[in-house]
This record gives sequence, structure tokens and C-alpha cells, in this order.
Amino acid sequence: MTSVKRINHIAIVVEDIDDALHFWRDALGLKVSHIEEVPDQDSVVAFLPVGNMEIELVKSTSEESGVARYLKKRGPGIHHICFEVDDIEASLESLKASGVRLINNEPIIGTSGKRVAFVHPESAHGVLVELYELPPK
Amino acid sequence: MTSVKRINHIAIVVEDIDDALHFWRDALGLKVSHIEEVPDQDSVVAFLPVGNMEIELVKSTSEESGVARYLKKRGPGIHHICFEVDDIEASLESLKASGVRLINNEPIIGTSGKRVAFVHPESAHGVLVELYELPPK
Repeated sequence: MTSVKRINHIAIVVEDIDDALHFWRDALGLKVSHIEEVPDQDSVVAFLPVGNMEIELVKSTSEESGVARYLKKRGPGIHHICFEVDDIEASLESLKASGVRLINNEPIIGTSGKRVAFVHPESAHGVLVELYELPPK
Repeated sequence: MTSVKRINHIAIVVEDIDDALHFWRDALGLKVSHIEEVPDQDSVVAFLPVGNMEIELVKSTSEESGVARYLKKRGPGIHHICFEVDDIEASLESLKASGVRLINNEPIIGTSGKRVAFVHPESAHGVLVELYELPPK
């Protein structure tokens, strides 16, 4: 069994960051910690901390990215939930042993060198689940 | 501006609670605090605490409930995010003043007497947002 610590973030696909901030920041009252371009994922991300986790508003900067395809197919909305784990290899092995279908059989390197992997939504009842290995302290 | 404290829960619509627990509990390793029938919402809910919030797996017990209609239209997946607020009337007034479309213009009484209201996903970029007023201490 994998060992999930807490939720790190919820990613929401949006058509336009400024437009999305009118709701999430101006109306709902969340603060924006920073807005960052993530070239290797062809996206711009606004980070809004809430409690001890974050809402991430993700806008694709290309027509071809996974996020752009998601937007075209399903419209804006929640894209994935990211859970923190201590040891991502151990978590992936454990999930595979449970018969869970993974998108990434090995960890990939995400934003700021994070080690992450995605579980296929087919195995997670329609939810795209990201695992994120906490960096060593 | 409304004052959001933290995320209380993420609700996930599932076709079958036991089947969903094979992933969320047995493979991913979350614990189940309790499973509760919610007759006024025609549903059964499994509560899985993670960090200082919860994942709620929601299964409809009727063909006619909102959750059943959601499942038929979109399939299983994330249904809504619930944010905690101090004063739900003040939050709703503030959202209305910002031009946000609400599903509930006044608070409704949810599970265990909770005072809640939903924001229309049209105003929240495809996300169904629930507000939940923290009970007085």
C-alpha cells in the first residue's frame, strides 16, 4: 500500500488566467502567491494557496499540449488532484501490484525538479491523480 | 470579498462505493473514517480524511438525484470542491456583488445541519464550488 501524506494541489484548467482570477482571487478571496511560466509543460500556472495546499490555475500556451486537448474535449474545470508521497518508486510499485493502471510507470521530472507520476483516471474512477514525492529535508 | 479559510472536502461521484474503495483505500492507502447514508441527498458517502481535509466518495441511491444525473452525463469523477467560510451570508452577498452566479442564493441545510451553498460552475470556470459555514465554536 502506498503512503499518502496530504493533498499538495488541485489543478484547474482555465481558458484565460486573468479571467479566472476574477473569480478565484477577486470574488472568492484567495491570494495569488505567484504566476509562473512552465515551458516544458507549455503552460502558465497561477498558484493560490488555501489552507496548507494550493489551487493551481493552468492555462495552456500551445494548441498541442495535454491541457489544451483536455480543454477542447471537456471544457474548463478540475484537471487533477496531486497527493504527496514519501517514496514515489515504492508508491508506483505498490499501485502496480494492486493492478492500478499508471500513465507514468516511472517518475517524471515536473516543475522545479519535482519527481511526479500520474495514475490513469480509468483506475481512479474518472479522477486524474498525480503523485508527488516530497523532496528530502 | 469573501473570506475562504481552507478546503473542507473534495467530492467524487462514484458508481459503487466498494469498487471505488479498492482504489482510494486499498491501493492509494487512504483511511476510511466512516460511511454514511445521507437520505435527504439520496446518497451514500464514504469519508476519507487526508491532511486536514477529506475526500468524499459519493454514490447516488436514486435514479433522480443530482449526483445520478451528473454520473449519467459526465461519468464518474470530481463533483465539487468545498471551501470553509466564516459567514456564509456575507460570502454569498459578496459573490453576488461581484456578479457571480449562484445555485443557492440563500444557505441550504446540508449533512448534519451544515449551512452550505453552491456557486454555479458557469461562474467558477467549470468547477462546482460549495461554500460551508464553519459551525460556531
